[in-house]
Amino acid sequence: MIYADNAATTKMSEAAVHTMTTLLQEVWGNPSSLYVHGQKAKEVLEQAREEIAAVIGASPREITFTSGGSEADNQAIRSVAEWGRLKGKMHIISTAFEHHAVLHTLNRLKREGFEITLLDVHENGLIRPAEVEAAIREDTCLVTVMTANNEIGTVQPIREIGAVCRAKKVFFHTDAVQAVGHIPLNVADDNIDMLSASAHKFHGPKGVGFLYVRKGVPLFNLIEGGAQERGKRAGTENVPGIAAMATALKEADAKRETNAAYLTKLRDRLIRGLLEIPHSALNGDAACRLPGNVNFCFEGIEGESLLLLLDDKGIQASSGSACTSGSLDPSHVLLAIGRVHDVAHGSLRLSLGEDLSEEDIDYIIRSVKEVVAYLRGFSPIWRDLMAGKKQFIL
Amino acid sequence: MIYADNAATTKMSEAAVHTMTTLLQEVWGNPSSLYVHGQKAKEVLEQAREEIAAVIGASPREITFTSGGSEADNQAIRSVAEWGRLKGKMHIISTAFEHHAVLHTLNRLKREGFEITLLDVHENGLIRPAEVEAAIREDTCLVTVMTANNEIGTVQPIREIGAVCRAKKVFFHTDAVQAVGHIPLNVADDNIDMLSASAHKFHGPKGVGFLYVRKGVPLFNLIEGGAQERGKRAGTENVPGIAAMATALKEADAKRETNAAYLTKLRDRLIRGLLEIPHSALNGDAACRLPGNVNFCFEGIEGESLLLLLDDKGIQASSGSACTSGSLDPSHVLLAIGRVHDVAHGSLRLSLGEDLSEEDIDYIIRSVKEVVAYLRGFSPIWRDLMAGKKQFIL
Repeated sequence: MIYADNAATTKMSEAAVHTMTTLLQEVWGNPSSLYVHGQKAKEVLEQAREEIAAVIGASPREITFTSGGSEADNQAIRSVAEWGRLKGKMHIISTAFEHHAVLHTLNRLKREGFEITLLDVHENGLIRPAEVEAAIREDTCLVTVMTANNEIGTVQPIREIGAVCRAKKVFFHTDAVQAVGHIPLNVADDNIDMLSASAHKFHGPKGVGFLYVRKGVPLFNLIEGGAQERGKRAGTENVPGIAAMATALKEADAKRETNAAYLTKLRDRLIRGLLEIPHSALNGDAACRLPGNVNFCFEGIEGESLLLLLDDKGIQASSGSACTSGSLDPSHVLLAIGRVHDVAHGSLRLSLGEDLSEEDIDYIIRSVKEVVAYLRGFSPIWRDLMAGKKQFIL
Repeated sequence: MIYADNAATTKMSEAAVHTMTTLLQEVWGNPSSLYVHGQKAKEVLEQAREEIAAVIGASPREITFTSGGSEADNQAIRSVAEWGRLKGKMHIISTAFEHHAVLHTLNRLKREGFEITLLDVHENGLIRPAEVEAAIREDTCLVTVMTANNEIGTVQPIREIGAVCRAKKVFFHTDAVQAVGHIPLNVADDNIDMLSASAHKFHGPKGVGFLYVRKGVPLFNLIEGGAQERGKRAGTENVPGIAAMATALKEADAKRETNAAYLTKLRDRLIRGLLEIPHSALNGDAACRLPGNVNFCFEGIEGESLLLLLDDKGIQASSGSACTSGSLDPSHVLLAIGRVHDVAHGSLRLSLGEDLSEEDIDYIIRSVKEVVAYLRGFSPIWRDLMAGKKQFIL
């Protein structure tokens, strides 16, 4: 089996599994309890907080644990919005290709009276800091731009966008779910006010994430209740999951440069191979992208059939985001970078992991070539294209 | 070590640990993915949903997985409130001794313009259905009353309250975090529209819970984003945690009657023993309470010192809710049942588990007697009481 869907979720590392299974059995106290067993859980919790903070250059008090990236995105955006409402600043800037955890939260705020500006994404899948700057108004409370896109993997000029926001005194949030553990990130150097992350995207467990919130930035509860997380996020802390997230993040960070170099080599080999397929195109910038991300469109075919046939060949991949699979709409990300509906439907995301070899990549290339050719043999659109009744786009 | 704080959290059962550790390593795919490995995760997820639904008499589609009880409470209450706002029904009825996940959510709704009626709790820690009925108005959208109180363990007449609500066409939510897996519950027989539960209270993992929402009852997202959980709760599902929750709940349900009979015996033995301490009192009704819950007030002492000295003797207990430990305020639950500040400060909650023996109970009784006597020896309040300068309350 070749697992090439690491953007959807990753396999937990052995070290993270070990932390989790050990703590499930040995440190199961409630960290809010005063007795020794509870205090031991509290220590483990706070150590995890320190370790995670250290990796991204934050201080431990700036880390709030959540149930994952979506919760972190919701809480970050709604917090600043609530503050903005009090200050009469009800304008938010984002982009058209954010994750739905961001876009749907913004839609809701729009219904509540906020004005939302979604910046256009350029054809290469990048946002320009100058365009962020131009969109900022007197009543802008927040700019939220993802660090790396979950479908096409393009990495945004976060530091420059953050600098623009800081100069204009606007809060800057970034959904870094795809980036944390994979590319260098430092909240201080990168001018980030709020950052969302999810453990299962960097070989940690599912159901755990964190939100970084710089000291002084407004943070309100999404989940009200007990006084956990300095009163900012109620609910008994998932100590084993949080500690396993810290283990996974430390490990990912330690191996980051080596892994990134290796994955970039695999990625570029895969891109070269797939570009040999006629009427295909890489989605998103070839260089400013996550080390393991490859995303292609193949004209004249359906992404879903492509996936099922690749699955038969032992290759697990995705047409885009796992969160929206099952939906018949083409990817909002591919539409945002200007792909037309027909072309966007024929998309394939291969998100590579360190366990893959060059031979695996070559097998993927051969398999995709075969499957695309096979599917085009059946495709009425392809027939029309070949007969000149329709114009090729790619 | 004697662990007597099962209301704060429970140790995971061996079976639940086994489910979790196996799945962490074997079924780590994203259930939204189309390939075989993702679909396997989806199957595990849906099987867990069926198993959990079966235990409480619901249908699988009525179960939404959350990160725990607090999230479930927040989502249930805010959902009906949002519906109520649209319908011009902005009155909610609850009680003064709910969990903070409910009370703080209601406080927030109050700030947003809702009118909240908090019913008085009678001295025995019980709510009367007739008083719920009397409080219902034309503009009432929701009644939320916890099934069993987390501090004093009193079990409410949920079925009768539910019947009142149904007759009056008002939605009924119950925070059943302390009850699920411990006492019989059936959402159909008990006239429940929405129910919140948390896995770590019934020997499942932390960071997982569920919300039952009867078909036809309004449910909106608390966490916006991907289309998981029929679009009602975004975020990649924590499949290993959810499956472990199902394992734990099935097990708790299978052993429920046996465990309850055993715990009730231990509980009543403990209550009899502690009542021998002069100027002490059981909090909450002696009969209508959770099988494992004992909650006492001892006049003239501080709960926190009591806990620390019991911890030295190897007994892990709590003064009330773990979620509010560290706070200097006396328990809002004890105040709600009419305990005055001084008395409420001297509280002790012992929440028993099946691993304890009668000898353990006798050891707890001896230890509490010793520690209470020791602390009273130092207490200026106790001196005043003994000197007749202050009147005994208990």
